[in-house]
Amino acid sequence: MEKVNMAEKFGLFADYWRPKIAGELNDSYIKLVKLKGEFVWHKHNDEDELFFVVKGMLLIHLRDRVFSLQAGEFLIVPRGVEHMPVAEDEVWVMLIEPKSTLNTGDVNNERTVDRLDRI
Amino acid sequence: MEKVNMAEKFGLFADYWRPKIAGELNDSYIKLVKLKGEFVWHKHNDEDELFFVVKGMLLIHLRDRVFSLQAGEFLIVPRGVEHMPVAEDEVWVMLIEPKSTLNTGDVNNERTVDRLDRI
Repeated sequence: MEKVNMAEKFGLFADYWRPKIAGELNDSYIKLVKLKGEFVWHKHNDEDELFFVVKGMLLIHLRDRVFSLQAGEFLIVPRGVEHMPVAEDEVWVMLIEPKSTLNTGDVNNERTVDRLDRI
Repeated sequence: MEKVNMAEKFGLFADYWRPKIAGELNDSYIKLVKLKGEFVWHKHNDEDELFFVVKGMLLIHLRDRVFSLQAGEFLIVPRGVEHMPVAEDEVWVMLIEPKSTLNTGDVNNERTVDRLDRI
């Protein structure tokens, strides 16, 4: 057992859109990821996904509206809901999602990360 | 769908040791709780539990050591591990745990909260 310090962990990597596993509990992973720019539209058919903003500002586009998340705010995107995260500047995000979750959901392209590193 | 702002939600209640449900995803709840003072020794036989400190400082006593968590730090207490949270001053904590989790785990006493409010 080790505690996790967010700022310290985020200091260990610089790449964007590649979530790192920072912890696991029950059937879920806690992942840390830095985002910058626009992702792809996708959905997760069987998994709800939580986005918690640690630093910066994250836009989560849905088909019918946009959520703007600041540090200290989170949004749960329910399974089946199409979404596209957009970070105008660098954002630090904690994700909570089932171990089975693929970052690009039902889409498989060059943004897909098959193997997650632990941090 | 609604985003959750931590500071705003914590501003809505003042009682200690009574977790509020702030979100649910997959089989888990996201709970917010204010702690002050000493809790009871307990364990969760089938559930891992995540403590994320939003504000203040939380001690988590295990039988063989103590973790000190500041804001921006989290600890996952695996199932079966006895623990006792202690807050010398008021602490704001986000918990992530299965919906089945009882706050006092395998102990049932006056600190047990059977029905959680949503916030």
